[in-house]
Amino acid sequence: MDPKGTDQTEACSRHVCVNNPHLELLTDDVLYHFDLATGTHDLTAMFGDVKFVCVGGSAWRMKSFIEYIAAELNMEDPEGHYPNLCAGTDRYAMYKVGPVLSVSHGIGVSSISVMLNELIKLLHYAHCTDVKVIRIGTSGGIGLEPGTVVITKQAVDPTFRPQFEQLVLGKPVVRSTDLDQGLAEELLQCNEELSQFRAVMGITMCAMDFYEGQARLDGAFCSFTEKEKLEYLQKAHEAGVCNIEMESTVFAAMCKLSGLQAAVVCVTLLDRLQGDQLSSSHEVLQQHSKRAQTLVGCYIKKQLKAKSGHD
Amino acid sequence: MDPKGTDQTEACSRHVCVNNPHLELLTDDVLYHFDLATGTHDLTAMFGDVKFVCVGGSAWRMKSFIEYIAAELNMEDPEGHYPNLCAGTDRYAMYKVGPVLSVSHGIGVSSISVMLNELIKLLHYAHCTDVKVIRIGTSGGIGLEPGTVVITKQAVDPTFRPQFEQLVLGKPVVRSTDLDQGLAEELLQCNEELSQFRAVMGITMCAMDFYEGQARLDGAFCSFTEKEKLEYLQKAHEAGVCNIEMESTVFAAMCKLSGLQAAVVCVTLLDRLQGDQLSSSHEVLQQHSKRAQTLVGCYIKKQLKAKSGHD
Repeated sequence: MDPKGTDQTEACSRHVCVNNPHLELLTDDVLYHFDLATGTHDLTAMFGDVKFVCVGGSAWRMKSFIEYIAAELNMEDPEGHYPNLCAGTDRYAMYKVGPVLSVSHGIGVSSISVMLNELIKLLHYAHCTDVKVIRIGTSGGIGLEPGTVVITKQAVDPTFRPQFEQLVLGKPVVRSTDLDQGLAEELLQCNEELSQFRAVMGITMCAMDFYEGQARLDGAFCSFTEKEKLEYLQKAHEAGVCNIEMESTVFAAMCKLSGLQAAVVCVTLLDRLQGDQLSSSHEVLQQHSKRAQTLVGCYIKKQLKAKSGHD
Repeated sequence: MDPKGTDQTEACSRHVCVNNPHLELLTDDVLYHFDLATGTHDLTAMFGDVKFVCVGGSAWRMKSFIEYIAAELNMEDPEGHYPNLCAGTDRYAMYKVGPVLSVSHGIGVSSISVMLNELIKLLHYAHCTDVKVIRIGTSGGIGLEPGTVVITKQAVDPTFRPQFEQLVLGKPVVRSTDLDQGLAEELLQCNEELSQFRAVMGITMCAMDFYEGQARLDGAFCSFTEKEKLEYLQKAHEAGVCNIEMESTVFAAMCKLSGLQAAVVCVTLLDRLQGDQLSSSHEVLQQHSKRAQTLVGCYIKKQLKAKSGHD
């Protein structure tokens, strides 16, 4: 065996793959929704050291996460200044501290898919290696105490199938939604050590909307009864679904295709078997929202400590 | 004929319908993603006079639209202050000047559907009447000079069918994507009077993502050839598709279900038969983006003038 060959194979698997031969033909690639481009930004200098990418729906939450992680890693900016690296656009917000990148993705599969396309290309162009991507989100729980954190074992669609279907050139393409089991286990282990709140591993259902698609009775439209709603949620529960959100399937599918280790960590803001409205106080919702951040922060800190121990 | 009965029927058709009997049972309805609620806000006092709702993906664009319309209607705030009525959340932004409401909806069908559910409930609770909803967006054109404005005659899915399919309790529900033809004609007529740029009426295709779903060759993933891409876009062109964006089908479906007169007015930022990248200068893209705003602003002004003439 040629050791160089082995190294190359290993190096390749450590990089972020793009699955698109056409990109080689582009002299300048404009990452439009980030307001970044290969022709105007030195992406390797800006992002080459990234090892952890945390993504979440809300730009405010992703800013608060970078402030939190900066403090945890003793990498605080003395003036508390964490610039938005996508300041030229309001589509997404992006912050960076050391090896941690924090990016917002908006609501729903389409919004996160645009962001992930450009993120994957960015990590590829920046020659990043061994990147882990973790979605830090909020969700509705099924049969769980509000505030419980769910680490996703598998992302499923609203018919409980572990797949993401999208139309390419008008024809359906079905992709696997497997997530990294090792990473999920490590996160669960981390929560046991942290011991501040409950975390479980379970199946996460990804819905296409917040109201009818999640069997809520409180949208502008509702054509089903409360009994039918509860039967559906009960069926989900029996299929192992612990929580419902709106991005996990496409997130899992795209990370898997790019060879990125990925995890989904969402706090549950309510128990959907008990109701539909997010009517807890702002303070309680805020406090619960922070749990996924706390857990992921703890995990990153532990990983970096282990790594510096090896160096 | 009982004139009262006639009046009631007419009044009913002028209101914003919610299609959900469960809402009557709610004592307080929390519009979570707006950070507004019936229990804490007097929605009728805040929004009862709204006649035009303009929605668009970008919060910045919707703020600039309200500033523009304020100037057009001679309703400028002397201090240039247009507060975000959803300031307690970063999910959506909302601005109001007189009878015009301007709301951002983020990217994609899921994101706009969450916003529209809460907007329709808001308009319903505020007892608004005769409301017109216009989406002001950006899009990729097919065979059109960049900068051309497309007024949507019909919104279609990526297989060119005029429908929006969503899963409710795990089962597909198909909804019509008809838009108000009279409103579309009035907008086109308005553009002829304005005579500043070209506008056409045509079919708009709504894709689930920006890259593969729109046959782009420049995403993180691409499994088709340039020839296959062009064949697909050519088929779309032959089916009457003038432009591609990411929200029109669900927007049309939800407005129709609520009895709202609705239109989609999107500028084309590039010609997809010529390329995929948005690489025009920032200034040109900005200038083109404003065209849909200019046209809709002109329409609103004309409507209000006609109405004050009748009063």
